[in-house]
Amino acid sequence: MTADPDLTRFSINQMTVTQLSLPELVDACGESGIRNVGLWREPVQAYGVGAAARLVREAGLTVTTLCRGGFLTATGSERRAAALADNRRAVEEAATLGTDTLVLVCGGLPSGDRDLHGARERVADALAELGPYAEGHGVRLAVEPLHPMYAADRCVVSTLAQALDLAERFPARQVGVTVDTYHVWWDDRAPEQIARAGAGGRIHTFQLADWTTPLPAGVLTGRGQIGDGAIDMREWKGCVEAAGYTGAIEVELFNEELWARDGREVLAETARRFVEHVLR
Amino acid sequence: MTADPDLTRFSINQMTVTQLSLPELVDACGESGIRNVGLWREPVQAYGVGAAARLVREAGLTVTTLCRGGFLTATGSERRAAALADNRRAVEEAATLGTDTLVLVCGGLPSGDRDLHGARERVADALAELGPYAEGHGVRLAVEPLHPMYAADRCVVSTLAQALDLAERFPARQVGVTVDTYHVWWDDRAPEQIARAGAGGRIHTFQLADWTTPLPAGVLTGRGQIGDGAIDMREWKGCVEAAGYTGAIEVELFNEELWARDGREVLAETARRFVEHVLR
Repeated sequence: MTADPDLTRFSINQMTVTQLSLPELVDACGESGIRNVGLWREPVQAYGVGAAARLVREAGLTVTTLCRGGFLTATGSERRAAALADNRRAVEEAATLGTDTLVLVCGGLPSGDRDLHGARERVADALAELGPYAEGHGVRLAVEPLHPMYAADRCVVSTLAQALDLAERFPARQVGVTVDTYHVWWDDRAPEQIARAGAGGRIHTFQLADWTTPLPAGVLTGRGQIGDGAIDMREWKGCVEAAGYTGAIEVELFNEELWARDGREVLAETARRFVEHVLR
Repeated sequence: MTADPDLTRFSINQMTVTQLSLPELVDACGESGIRNVGLWREPVQAYGVGAAARLVREAGLTVTTLCRGGFLTATGSERRAAALADNRRAVEEAATLGTDTLVLVCGGLPSGDRDLHGARERVADALAELGPYAEGHGVRLAVEPLHPMYAADRCVVSTLAQALDLAERFPARQVGVTVDTYHVWWDDRAPEQIARAGAGGRIHTFQLADWTTPLPAGVLTGRGQIGDGAIDMREWKGCVEAAGYTGAIEVELFNEELWARDGREVLAETARRFVEHVLR
């Protein structure tokens, strides 16, 4: 199948169809007219970073993001050094894959720690080291605010305002933000923060997932298929576009029910939902 | 046992020890030197509102809050009228129990609705009707912002800033806010909003629960015992006190593990944790 014009800006994040191997995903994208993929480090490493880069390049696919670096909140010099080294490798992997965007999930509170502000400052310290390194590789860091329900154990950066407070300490070509509907939809300040991010050229990627309830235990794998939940996708698309964003729109779902189904079917469904609930 | 001076401001919310019947709770408070209770409508109604009022009054207990009214986001005149009627009953119950504070959980999005702003405006419309009614009964409405993870299905008011934007349309003697650590701890704007609430005389109650992970399925019953989680309780107590709050501090935990234990033991533990992690 040739590329579908409706899907020009659609990108499928690899995690949405984690049941597909990388070659299966690349094949299925070709069959469905999908031109863009967001990749994850673990399956790419398992396949081989160089081999993965060749596979997607030869298929004519664009890699919109690499997910994910981050986890920058550790205390202790050894742990911090290990985190920085791992993030430098992530930058190198992004460059090898030909994507200009590395998504960062910044990390939660260390065990027993109750100082969110201090943890956010350690993220800033790490960005100061990683930003120039990323720029040297043609890669931009995209700090992703995660929903406040992850503040303790996954990401101390909970709002776009906080993410921009961090990013704006650095040049936009080094550090910007990820706008993901799942994480920001509840926040009445998010539209003004998207405008702020756009004005600064800092919307480095735009991701979609819908909000469905009840949330599953651990709250990691309950991201809803587009159209199934409470989020007005067109409104958020309009919001990032009004802020000047013209890039890919990546659908990233972590969802046990989708993972239990045939991956190609889920891929085709996700593309249809994108056209129906985001474009139309 | 006589009242414990350390527990002068401590209030036990009935839901923390839901395994105790109302008479058991009242007895146990007497044994533990606890002077204040926060009550819930359902167990109070089951016991009889008038009988409950006599029971707590004769035991010398102060009722710090009644939980809860709210669920004011329905569309359709019949549902809205039913919600308002139920909230008027809640006001009357609060007055009968002798508490001046009715906590409001405002309600989520109606099924299929994606308009958070519209739902919040329906809450404002309802407050305009309920505020004067409450004032006429000597009761203040305490709008409780719930953690953003409840925005779709439980409460469209997700931050103290949003709660105050609603409350400030009305006199403080009619509408204020509930500050609950569980719901606001992640929010770097919460301290400035607590100051705003205090300046307006709108901190109508202060509640505590700790944040522990992983969250359980449905995310309703994972509120941690004080000291077990990520929240710095002394800091939040200092924050509300700096804003002028001198009232009771209510511990409200929804926690399956605590509910499975002996209620008197949990009550005593909660009082000890309050002294250790909040006062000292």
